[in-house]
Amino acid sequence: MKRARLFTPGPTAVPDEVLAALGRPLVHHRTQAFGDALTEVMCDLQYIMQTQNPVVVLSSSGSGGMEACVVNLTAPGEKVIVTELGKFSNRWREMAQTYGVEVVSVSAEWGHAVTPDQVAAAFTAHPDATALLTIHSETSTGVLQDVEAFAQIAHRHDALIVVDGITSVGCHDVRTDEWGLDAVVGGSQKGVMTPPGLAYVSLSPAAIQKMEGRRHASYYFDLVKAVKSAGKADTPYTPAIPLVFGLQAALRMMREEGLENVIARHAANAGAVRAAVSAMGLSMLAETPSNATTAVLIPDGRAGDITKKMEHEHGVKIAGGQQHLNGHIVRLGHLGFYNAADMLTLVTAFETVCHELGLVDARGPGVEALGAAYGGGA
Amino acid sequence: MKRARLFTPGPTAVPDEVLAALGRPLVHHRTQAFGDALTEVMCDLQYIMQTQNPVVVLSSSGSGGMEACVVNLTAPGEKVIVTELGKFSNRWREMAQTYGVEVVSVSAEWGHAVTPDQVAAAFTAHPDATALLTIHSETSTGVLQDVEAFAQIAHRHDALIVVDGITSVGCHDVRTDEWGLDAVVGGSQKGVMTPPGLAYVSLSPAAIQKMEGRRHASYYFDLVKAVKSAGKADTPYTPAIPLVFGLQAALRMMREEGLENVIARHAANAGAVRAAVSAMGLSMLAETPSNATTAVLIPDGRAGDITKKMEHEHGVKIAGGQQHLNGHIVRLGHLGFYNAADMLTLVTAFETVCHELGLVDARGPGVEALGAAYGGGA
Repeated sequence: MKRARLFTPGPTAVPDEVLAALGRPLVHHRTQAFGDALTEVMCDLQYIMQTQNPVVVLSSSGSGGMEACVVNLTAPGEKVIVTELGKFSNRWREMAQTYGVEVVSVSAEWGHAVTPDQVAAAFTAHPDATALLTIHSETSTGVLQDVEAFAQIAHRHDALIVVDGITSVGCHDVRTDEWGLDAVVGGSQKGVMTPPGLAYVSLSPAAIQKMEGRRHASYYFDLVKAVKSAGKADTPYTPAIPLVFGLQAALRMMREEGLENVIARHAANAGAVRAAVSAMGLSMLAETPSNATTAVLIPDGRAGDITKKMEHEHGVKIAGGQQHLNGHIVRLGHLGFYNAADMLTLVTAFETVCHELGLVDARGPGVEALGAAYGGGA
Repeated sequence: MKRARLFTPGPTAVPDEVLAALGRPLVHHRTQAFGDALTEVMCDLQYIMQTQNPVVVLSSSGSGGMEACVVNLTAPGEKVIVTELGKFSNRWREMAQTYGVEVVSVSAEWGHAVTPDQVAAAFTAHPDATALLTIHSETSTGVLQDVEAFAQIAHRHDALIVVDGITSVGCHDVRTDEWGLDAVVGGSQKGVMTPPGLAYVSLSPAAIQKMEGRRHASYYFDLVKAVKSAGKADTPYTPAIPLVFGLQAALRMMREEGLENVIARHAANAGAVRAAVSAMGLSMLAETPSNATTAVLIPDGRAGDITKKMEHEHGVKIAGGQQHLNGHIVRLGHLGFYNAADMLTLVTAFETVCHELGLVDARGPGVEALGAAYGGGA
């Protein structure tokens, strides 16, 4: 029996309850049934994002949600500061430049976070910057950034802070309101345990005020329209209906578990995986690791051998590295619907394969450390 | 037992085979399994669109597909001709104007088609127009337009013809290559019997050449990237994976039925519904009716009474009118997964409700005419 298991940092594992919701008979979106589901979804997204701000749901990937932020929260001729520390945070720059926005990049080597001091220096040098486009958890490297500190700096300079929270919402404490995050973008196929196809964006009063003024041209990603429709439990264009019902099912599970427990579970899983990797004698890329994914440095460019062997022999799908890290890291995903038993599956397959490939000396220390990290048994 | 049935012109009824495909265990999009499904989907879309042009699949509603055409196939400062005859064809103007494109409108009263002579006159008056943005089946009125004739005119003036085929692909003969349609946009929740969340766009060599030159800024809807990815059985951003598998299942059914039979079935269903409506003594809005939906004129602004009663008492969801036609028409949908038995359900409920509301004198002539139209029995 070949049983495929997803351990990528997105798309992530989907609970049966969510799959079942996808397959329900289709209802029209202009019905009470759909409006109720959308309302519940938006309310539950506020819960996991810890915000009273409206959260709009867009039928697109997370990148569509990011573009919606760029076109609505910046205007032609403006200047923004972007933290660049990996593939996804670089995307903010690419998008802003696509729209002719001037970009001041503050960068860190892949594997490191940008420091608050760097961000502060950029704002001091560019006091006319209108927004900071940044990322909480950089999926390509598994690095977590201090967006709370970034927010304070941005606000001191009267700039908006726009956060890619695509792999942090639902696995880290994202205190949208307390920290003052003006926009936070998420994607359905990440911490919220649903297949890809939906993005969601929270928008602060300052963000809404900004987008009601000058901004870029856009039709499908017009967030003024989206916020207005959301207030009527509707969407401007036909939504991906089954995915909204899937997301409803997933968010119900998360609410039942409780946000604190969800975050604690992710911290425990991520911590246990890191302990296992260390015990195997391997190094990790991220200086300040995210709970979403653990990027493991693989010697001799042999990461591809590991990902292939894990997929073909164990049915365990993990991710490799992107761009210059291709071949040099693997990314073990623990974002979403995973518990200790899943981590045991993941680490057992990983350690077995690394041992067979001669990349680690012994077989066992990883799994043992994993169990110990959970307090005695996986 | 309340059994809900969708007879709206989108979202349309979804076969069980498609619902089952949505609920399958999620696979990653960077796998052979997903690449094979996407390749099959793109190939089957070429089949129903009768084209050798690449057809790209976008994770968005049909409106997203339209916007992708506007941003990629027009450039700042250009002029386009738009046929306006209802809510969805008007959207081309709104989108083009959002991007600062000059729009020459050629309009017809709602319920009528724009004539080829009108389009030719517009091109003669505006020889600098670079594209005609038009619609095949106008969903808000149920009107079909002669896009074959439009294409000849556009090409005589060296302009591209960009067609909203959202409610014509899969229910009408759309001869993309024979007629020379440069771009045709479709949506998953229409003739291809899948829930909403995907758009698809075919692009001629001339369209591709145009978009490789000057165009508007866009990131998520960058069709140059989309075409390039499609050639590698991939998408630039994470796709709505379950919907692609759903679309695969739906298109297999359509290929098995055969495109000619699919179109003939739609013509038979639409013709039978029109015969029924006439026999009931009611009038229809569309001068040149589409096979997607039949717009029926309702006296005394009582369309809302009909749609509510049909939904609540019969579980049959139909659509009302939009904008100034709200209250004055109902739209009976027969686009997609319907046969004679479904039309019998639809017409029986419609005639019963119209009779109960005193809008028609007798109960029976509609159903009788429906049966006769099918050759003796529904």
